[in-house]
Amino acid sequence: MLAIALDRYVQVEVVPAPALSVRSTGEGAHLSGDASHLAARVVADVLGHDRFAVTVHSQIPISRGLGSSAALAAAAAGAAGAEDPLAVAAAYDGHPENAAASVFGGLVAATMVEAKPQAATLALSEQLAFVAVVPDRSLATSDARRVLPESVPRVDATFNLGRMGLLLAGLAEPSVLTSAATGDRLHQDARTTLFPEAPALLAALVEAGALASCWSGAGPTLLGITTQTALAGVSDRVEGALASLGFSASVLQLQADRDGLVYGDSAELPT
Amino acid sequence: MLAIALDRYVQVEVVPAPALSVRSTGEGAHLSGDASHLAARVVADVLGHDRFAVTVHSQIPISRGLGSSAALAAAAAGAAGAEDPLAVAAAYDGHPENAAASVFGGLVAATMVEAKPQAATLALSEQLAFVAVVPDRSLATSDARRVLPESVPRVDATFNLGRMGLLLAGLAEPSVLTSAATGDRLHQDARTTLFPEAPALLAALVEAGALASCWSGAGPTLLGITTQTALAGVSDRVEGALASLGFSASVLQLQADRDGLVYGDSAELPT
Repeated sequence: MLAIALDRYVQVEVVPAPALSVRSTGEGAHLSGDASHLAARVVADVLGHDRFAVTVHSQIPISRGLGSSAALAAAAAGAAGAEDPLAVAAAYDGHPENAAASVFGGLVAATMVEAKPQAATLALSEQLAFVAVVPDRSLATSDARRVLPESVPRVDATFNLGRMGLLLAGLAEPSVLTSAATGDRLHQDARTTLFPEAPALLAALVEAGALASCWSGAGPTLLGITTQTALAGVSDRVEGALASLGFSASVLQLQADRDGLVYGDSAELPT
Repeated sequence: MLAIALDRYVQVEVVPAPALSVRSTGEGAHLSGDASHLAARVVADVLGHDRFAVTVHSQIPISRGLGSSAALAAAAAGAAGAEDPLAVAAAYDGHPENAAASVFGGLVAATMVEAKPQAATLALSEQLAFVAVVPDRSLATSDARRVLPESVPRVDATFNLGRMGLLLAGLAEPSVLTSAATGDRLHQDARTTLFPEAPALLAALVEAGALASCWSGAGPTLLGITTQTALAGVSDRVEGALASLGFSASVLQLQADRDGLVYGDSAELPT
């Protein structure tokens, strides 16, 4: 499936230590800092032991459909020196497209092929930017998955394939991007039962001037796709719409990240 | 959905005449040349009367999944002076992607949005060429549609979305195109009941050196996607495979067409 890397980052540092420790700041800092922490599990898996201290600093809201787990898993795999951070992150997160966006940056298509992630980058216009409506309340991925039907009408499957073609054309060339391109019949309606305000908010993004709007992953974050020139205006009008709807959410102005996984200078290893 | 314009053409000429006549040469020449002929219907619709003579010359095998109807409808609409040949052709043919490829050329995504075709062009590498295995026997679109199930597992719908992303990335950049990119769970298996040799032939195309292979539309034509440099070799090896399988088909070496609908010089109108 598809994912776009956006400019909110998670930073992971791993250093040798007598025993495992996890220190976490920023988003997700409230999560338990023991061996069950995703970063600890990924690093232990890559290193094959648990004699390390891992430090995580995240700007990515968690359980909001923003791919924070995949980003964390990719960063942790990279920090631990994994040869193939994408494979590691995709195995932990189960969303190869999210992991691929975190590793490669930009717009990616990725899917599991014989249990291995296969990923490729697609054209994403520099003219595009993104407005994310990040609700204050989270939505567990397990709930978001549970409400999906086991089978779907074949015409709905082909509907989504048709819209995906339009969407990829529009992400490459914004002059042909229309709100029809994010049309969906496979998950948004079912998930609306968990998030009844979503249709009104998706419409508000387009009314505010976004070219198109959609759920970000399994939600509850909603994304507006907009031109750079319209970005601030769309964001302002969406803030206004949220206020009048009485809906509590952060509105983020985001840019595509084009770099993906970046390695810092190796820290001096404490002895 | 997606379609690629390939370099087999249909030419349509329309001139005023006291009464409707249809003259057809090349592929489809055996079809009845009366008012029921697709070209006659399209032209009559565009002109609003039936006082014309239409001449059709087609290089496109019919009832083979090669989009001959959409190409004919697009050419007839253009020849009749339709303002929007895509809309006319999509309405007659029901496959907006085929009509869009015929009108615009290249790789297109197109789908019906509120009963109107919406189409956009996507990147298609100049390095790619195509080997078409066109079976001697036809497959009626109605039969090909009848065998499809009304509903499909949701995981199969997402499977195809994932593969479509890989396919579009690979059509833009052949170095990342793999045979996994044309993986399908929505129609090929069901249609194999009508064409049991298809899986062996699809495999033969890849064994012959095609990067990937798939059904062309509803079949029975099968397409291999190959590099320009491998084209002749793939074609030769596929010919050999067909011979050893005892399967009767034409093997065509095809290029993408980049021009779409082309208007000739207006003929001198007979008085």
